[in-house]
This record gives sequence, structure tokens and C-alpha cells, in this order.
Amino acid sequence: MSTYETDVVIVGAGPAGLFSVFQCGMLKLKTHVVDVLDHAGGQCQALYPEKFIYDIPAHPRLTAQELVERLLVQAEPFSPVYHLGRQVVSLARTSDNRWRAGLSDGSEIVAGAVIVAAGCGAFGPNRPPLAEIERYEGRSVHYFVARREQFRGKRVVIAGGGDSAVDWALNLAEIAERVMVVHRRPKFRAAPDSEAKLHALAEQGALDLVVPYQLQGLDGEDGVLRAVRVATLEGEIRVLPADDLLAFFGMSMDLGPIAQWDLTMDGAHIDVNPATMLTNLPGVFAVGDICTYPGKLKLILMGFAEAAKAAHAAYGVVHPGQALHIEHSSTAGIPG
Amino acid sequence: MSTYETDVVIVGAGPAGLFSVFQCGMLKLKTHVVDVLDHAGGQCQALYPEKFIYDIPAHPRLTAQELVERLLVQAEPFSPVYHLGRQVVSLARTSDNRWRAGLSDGSEIVAGAVIVAAGCGAFGPNRPPLAEIERYEGRSVHYFVARREQFRGKRVVIAGGGDSAVDWALNLAEIAERVMVVHRRPKFRAAPDSEAKLHALAEQGALDLVVPYQLQGLDGEDGVLRAVRVATLEGEIRVLPADDLLAFFGMSMDLGPIAQWDLTMDGAHIDVNPATMLTNLPGVFAVGDICTYPGKLKLILMGFAEAAKAAHAAYGVVHPGQALHIEHSSTAGIPG
Repeated sequence: MSTYETDVVIVGAGPAGLFSVFQCGMLKLKTHVVDVLDHAGGQCQALYPEKFIYDIPAHPRLTAQELVERLLVQAEPFSPVYHLGRQVVSLARTSDNRWRAGLSDGSEIVAGAVIVAAGCGAFGPNRPPLAEIERYEGRSVHYFVARREQFRGKRVVIAGGGDSAVDWALNLAEIAERVMVVHRRPKFRAAPDSEAKLHALAEQGALDLVVPYQLQGLDGEDGVLRAVRVATLEGEIRVLPADDLLAFFGMSMDLGPIAQWDLTMDGAHIDVNPATMLTNLPGVFAVGDICTYPGKLKLILMGFAEAAKAAHAAYGVVHPGQALHIEHSSTAGIPG
Repeated sequence: MSTYETDVVIVGAGPAGLFSVFQCGMLKLKTHVVDVLDHAGGQCQALYPEKFIYDIPAHPRLTAQELVERLLVQAEPFSPVYHLGRQVVSLARTSDNRWRAGLSDGSEIVAGAVIVAAGCGAFGPNRPPLAEIERYEGRSVHYFVARREQFRGKRVVIAGGGDSAVDWALNLAEIAERVMVVHRRPKFRAAPDSEAKLHALAEQGALDLVVPYQLQGLDGEDGVLRAVRVATLEGEIRVLPADDLLAFFGMSMDLGPIAQWDLTMDGAHIDVNPATMLTNLPGVFAVGDICTYPGKLKLILMGFAEAAKAAHAAYGVVHPGQALHIEHSSTAGIPG
């Protein structure tokens, strides 16, 4: 079981968390970053990577993914340690007034300060309730399409009845060996035009509509899928030989363990002092969409500014009594 | 004498002022921007255009000038009206609870709200006290080098004894027909190495050192210089035939007329409510380096975030009683 020590633990690797790394780094504070998703970028990356954002200062237009990539580059000189695909499940005070963050993989991070940049909380895809599905995730089971080409020539089961399921079925039918669409009802909740195309392709035999069926189980080993088992409400079972399962059951947000940390909340948001981003717990700060204070605006830009405030205040917690000499970045530069 | 009407007058065209244009624009508030300098960009543009800045979010590195250019592009879709080379000399309440800004050129702007984004105040080069010098400015008299090439083949008088004067003398000696350096003392306040080069070039006859002399007057007409007159303390006069005068006497900052507007100040800074950026005057906001509140950090990023807050609060002043429906930029897009 690993135990790490650092100056600041950052909970969440979305834009506010990534910029917290940078701001801490400029003050020579070392950081570890934990995110439940297996990639940095938070909602930007998971929900709308290719959407344009117009209100990042001095970026007339960039995609959410470009934003995340640039924030990662900006954080890189400060060598943050990322713990992705992991959750901070516990937070406890140490005897020497630091914080011990317990992670879902059993490791621990001890730090002088904590910055909670958790957006809307643990944010992720809804998993279908299939035994041992996590063993296939990232290899044969997917909740979004990172690279279309990886499905070329593959037998792909697509589960779900919304736009994502229908759009990807149409799209992947062009390159996959076989696309099978599993939905528990014959009717889809998708754009009428797309649904019409779906039925047309099914009639031409270019894909299979497996309706009304629900996912029932996965066959395979070592994370490699062999078949997806599906069943009707009446218990009739079919076995679909498959290389990949794409499950589109939407996303959900859940404050998760954070709700257990005795933070003063205003609904689903953490109350902070707007001057410092300090929560009611000493040395624990909150920034970005998860925090609230009078005048709070839910803009990515606000998360950046809050990250700067939290980093400056965290410096005083990590180095009590040491004056902070602030130099402009144009004078101080960055490492390396 | 022109009178303009708009939603928001922005005092200052530095980064915080330019991003205020954008944020107001996203809320469909029209803006006029006034700046005492004859170009947008404030200190960034006037003091250190080629210096790198590292702490603008999602810009791992960019020059101050690039920052300004990108902010101008970002503001452009909202068609701000710029009043450059002008100062807001008076601010008075109208009978219908709007504000009337009186400009140094005699024009007036009437607006529902005012955002003061004036940095360190009216910020500009120290002018040598020469009669009618303003008639030559921008044509034959310059306070910084915007484009080195404009001095190729010209007779250039450089006045001043610091690094700027010495460095540009060395630099322009390569391309100007003649460089004449006027300083009131034989000794310069420049890097020793640069000063040694200056004297070496003077000995080789590659430039003229005109010391100890001070500027005394300008000869020419219609803004076109013919000669610069210089004098010793004893009154000995020389006439230097010249096409251009580069005067490097440093920059100064002065709160200027803002100090007369009955704003509650904390030293040279305007006190604001950190939730809204509202000053003690109704409908008058302050953002960027000129404002202060508990936790204020003097970072350009903070000016951006403050601009967003001020724009949202200004909306309520310009459209009293109208609810503001906030849409994310990735959904709402921008005009055009």
C-alpha cells in the first residue's frame, strides 16, 4: 500500500484542478491530483470535448479538449503526480495537523493542504449492472468513443436508446464488421431522422437491432470480451458474439465521499470564504463549480481565479509564518 | 461636440478593460472604451510588449502583445467603440440615474453603468516640456519603438540617459542615416557593457554623443520635424537636423481625474464589493489592478474574473428588474 507525501492534494483534474496545479507550482508547492475519471479534463473532456468555448480570456475560440490539453502543458513544468481512475474516499486530520487522503486503490496521500476542485462531484458514465464489468473497462467495454478507428473490423454491441447509441450505431456501421444495437424497447429516444436511418440500415441488413432486450452478462476472460448476453423481460436469452461493448446509459454526478467530510455545504456546493477559498475545515479549500460564495458565477474562468486564490492561501498553510514574495510570471518565469 | 449613448463606459483599454468589453458583449451590453494611450493594451502594450507571460490560463507562454491582440480579437464581435488618446476627465450623474462621462476631447458618453479598469491610473510616457510637442507625436516624436524599420535611413535624435536610450541608440545606429544621443550628463544610467559600446561607436563616428545637452525645442511644421534644438545649462545652443525624436524619459502613473469622482479609496486603489465589483457609487464598478478588496491578488487573471463579475452586476443596473438568463458560451456562441 503506497503512501505519498506532498504539499497539496488536489481533488479533481478538471480545468480548475489543473490550473490549481499551475498556481501551486508557481508558489513552489508540490501537488498530487486525484480524479475518478481515467483521464484529465473533467466534464470538458468527458462531456463535450469537441464543443467550442468562447469565454476563456485571450482564447477567442477553442474546443474543450484543446483547453484541457493546454492546461496540462501549462501544469507540466511543475511535475504534478496524477492518480487517475481513483477516488478520494476518506479525508482525515493527522496528528501533526496535515491531511491524510485515502484513495480507492488503498493508497494514501499526506499533504499540508487540500484543494477540492471536484466540479459536480464524482462525475461519470452510468455503468450497466453487470457482474465484473470493471474488468473489461478500458479494454472491451467503453462508455464513450475516444477513437473511432479502434472499432474497425470489430463486432460491436451498442447498448442504449438515446442519441449517442443511435448516432454511433450509424457511424460505426460503416467500419465495424458487425454492429448490434441492444435496447429494451423498440422505440428510441433519438432525433427522428437518425432513428429512421437506423431502421433503414437494419432493414438492409447493415446492422442488427436487438430489441426489446436488456444487457444480462459478459462472457470473456482477462478483460477481453467474447460475447454479450442479453435477455427479454420474459427471460429469453440471446448470446451475441462480440469484441466490444459500447454502453450509452448517460452520465451521472454524485458528490460521493465528499459529502462525508464535514464540510459546510449549501445544497450540493461547498461554502467558502471568497477571499481565500477556505472551507470550514482548516487547510481545506474548494474551487470551481463545486464551491459557492456571494457573487459566484459558474464560469470556467472563475475556477481559474479561485485556483489562484486557493494556491496563495494554501501557501500560508503549508509554510506557516513564511512571507510569500509574489513575483509576476513575466519576471519569475517557469521551471526548466 | 459629440455625445454618445451606450450601455457601459469602460475606462481603460488594458487587459481587464478589453475583457470587460467581451463579458458585457456576452450579456448583450454595448460598450465604449476610453484610454489615455493611443493604443489598446495598457501597461502590457506600453511597458513590456515582448515579455513573456506564463500565468494566463491555457496559455503556457505568450507575449504581452499577443495577449492584447487576442483580447482585441475576442472583443471584436461585440463592436466596441474605442476612444483612444483621450481621458475621461469628468463623471457626473444624469437626472435619469445614468452617468455622463466627459472626455478630454470635449465629447461626452452617457451610459447606464461605468466600469473603471484604469490599472495604475493614467499611465504614459513622461513628455519632455517642449512647446507644441503634441503636434509631432505619433509622426516625428515617439516614446517607444513600435517598428524598428521606420527609422531606416532617417536622422534620429534619441533623448535620455537610461537603458532604453542607450539600447536603441546601439540598435538604430545599424540602420539609421544618423543617430544623435542627447543627454544632460556625460554619464549614462545603463548597463556598463552597453555604455561601453555606445562610447566605442561614438569614437568610430558611427553615432554622435550630444552631451551634456538638454532638449530645448522642435523645428518643423505640420507634425513633420526638421530639427531638434538642444542647449547646455550655460545656454549654448545647437540645432540638430533630424527626421525623428525618440524621447526616453520613463513612464509615470497618475490616478488623474479619477481621484475627483468621490470614489471610496484605499490609498491609490478603489474599494469594491468583491461579489459584484461595485464601488460606493451606484452603477460604477472597478476591476483589475485599480480595485481592491479582501484577498485581492494583482494578477491579470484576477482582472478577467472581476470583469465577468462586473459585467453581470452591470446588467442589473442597465436593465433593472430583468432576470439574467445565463447560457454557457459553448451553447450560446458569439455573434457573427
